[in-house]
This record gives sequence, structure tokens and C-alpha cells, in this order.
Amino acid sequence: MPGSGKGVFRKTVQRMGCPVVIMGDVVREEVKRRNLKPTPENLGKTMLNLRELEGPAAIAKRCIPKLKKATGRIVVIDGVRSLAEVEIFKKHFPNFVLVAIYASPETRYQRLFRRKRSDDPTNWETFMERDLRELGVGMGTVIAAADHTIVNEGTLAQLKTEIRLVMKEMIEDE
Amino acid sequence: MPGSGKGVFRKTVQRMGCPVVIMGDVVREEVKRRNLKPTPENLGKTMLNLRELEGPAAIAKRCIPKLKKATGRIVVIDGVRSLAEVEIFKKHFPNFVLVAIYASPETRYQRLFRRKRSDDPTNWETFMERDLRELGVGMGTVIAAADHTIVNEGTLAQLKTEIRLVMKEMIEDE
Repeated sequence: MPGSGKGVFRKTVQRMGCPVVIMGDVVREEVKRRNLKPTPENLGKTMLNLRELEGPAAIAKRCIPKLKKATGRIVVIDGVRSLAEVEIFKKHFPNFVLVAIYASPETRYQRLFRRKRSDDPTNWETFMERDLRELGVGMGTVIAAADHTIVNEGTLAQLKTEIRLVMKEMIEDE
Repeated sequence: MPGSGKGVFRKTVQRMGCPVVIMGDVVREEVKRRNLKPTPENLGKTMLNLRELEGPAAIAKRCIPKLKKATGRIVVIDGVRSLAEVEIFKKHFPNFVLVAIYASPETRYQRLFRRKRSDDPTNWETFMERDLRELGVGMGTVIAAADHTIVNEGTLAQLKTEIRLVMKEMIEDE
């Protein structure tokens, strides 16, 4: 969910040397290909249009060749949002592991409010609207079905320690 | 989700002296009122029928008088399954706090397989079917939107410690 700590996960594993495929990049590439400006509106519309044209796992499918090209013991996919996407990834990569990062709505709101990216909420109402939009596409289902859940209610250092632990466990399982 | 540790939560808080209202009891009472046997099938059908007749928050609405009658610093509701139910509870009880208990599908499957209640799965396929049924009514959305998440991947003793910690925090917040 927005503000849970997904970005920290990505940066931490990148620093560990893991290649990361960002699902949002697929949408950004398509926006560029269509000669549109990468505004939040154009990105949102293009994402919905891709799903309409190519099905609910459209973005995931476009990630497959990128993932197959990546080399490393663990390759990380950033931005899974529905069970349809999980199914595609599991089909192509039998060792696929789903990791969720949880933080309470209150904590996430405070973080986003402090972060103040252009598309971050400035009040509780717009925060809740965005939450419900994410949950509407099936984000909650993916979170509930995760193979690992990291609770991120503490400090940044605690989160990084937990991320390294989960990654170490995965390498050992493999 | 089935096998996550919801029952341990209920028993632990009951031993702490908290009254607990079990949402499933509303359905069991209705089954009795209709002179039906409390089979899993009759319980399932009656639950769906109540929702059809009285809306998606039917079970939650029937819990309100029970909750208002209960006395204690904290009253626990067992069995929230959709955001519609959360909204009803928040409306009637502004200090409502949503707690989720998470365990990975693998861990939950092993627990249910060992528990062997009459309606527990005996193979991965029936386990996944039940999971998808729970997620289909919006369980994942509720889990992702929880105010507290307890990760229950360790021992029973660790879970009980964590439950007592969450309850203590709530009493302090109040």
C-alpha cells in the first residue's frame, strides 16, 4: 500500500546487488511510445488501457522478457497488484515468492504527508480515496496471500534489517 | 485467513477478561431460529441469505446490540470479513480498532492439516479453494487496511506475548 516501505525494499535489495524489474516502468515505456507526457493522469489511463487491450495481467506479461534477461540469484519484481499477476509470475518462475510490506493506515498517512511527492495526499480524505483505489484492483488479496509479510511500523534501520533477513532466508531456501 | 491464529487471539483475550462477540454466532442463532441443523452447508447458505436480505453488513448489524450490552474496557469482535462491516462498526464505535493476524499460506496449510476439524482441508487444492472464497468476499481488503497486524509465524507462546502487547497498547491509547 502507498507509504508502506516498498521503495526502501527496492533500494535495499538493489544495494545488495539484486536486479529489480519495476512494473510501473512498463507503463512509463508505453506512455513514451504513444508520445504522451508522463503525467499521473496519462500513466493511469495508459495502465487501464493496457489492461483492457491485453487482459488483467497485461503489465506482468510485459515484464516476463525483462525478468528472463536479468541475471542474479534473486531477481526482484516491484509493484505486484493483483492475483492475476501473481499467477502469471508463478507460471513462468516456479520459485516465485510474494513479499508484502505492511504498515497501518495511520503510519502510512504520516509518511506520505511528510514525503510530499506530487501525487501524495495532503489530507486524510484523498489518502483514503487512493487506498480504496489500490484495494479496488485487488491489492488486499495479494497482501493477504503473501508468502512473507514484513511489518514496517518501526525505524528505517529496523526495516532494512528485516529486509536483509527475508532475503537471506530466501537464498537459504533456494 | 483460516489457520492464521484467530482462535488463539479470542481465547487469549477471553482469559484476560475481555468479552468477545463472535460474528459466526449470529449465523448459528439464525440457523436455529429457522429450525435447521447447524451443518457447514446450512451455515454458509444462511449467511449468504442474510446478506441478500439485509445487505453486505447484515451480520455486523446484528452484532451491534450484543456489543452495546457487553461491558469491559475493550470488547472484542471475532470474524470481520469485509470493509462494509468495518464501516458499520466504526460508525457505532468511534474507537474501533481493526487487528489482522497474518501467517503465510504454507504455515496456515500445515496448521489446518494438523488441526483436522470437519471443515478443514486435507489437500492443497481444497485449501486454496477456501482461501479464494474468503478473499472473494473482501477478506484481503480488510487485512490490508488493518490498524494492527500480528505476524504469526513463530510459536504459540510468541503469539500470546504479541497479543498481550497489542491489547496493552490499545488500553494505553485509550
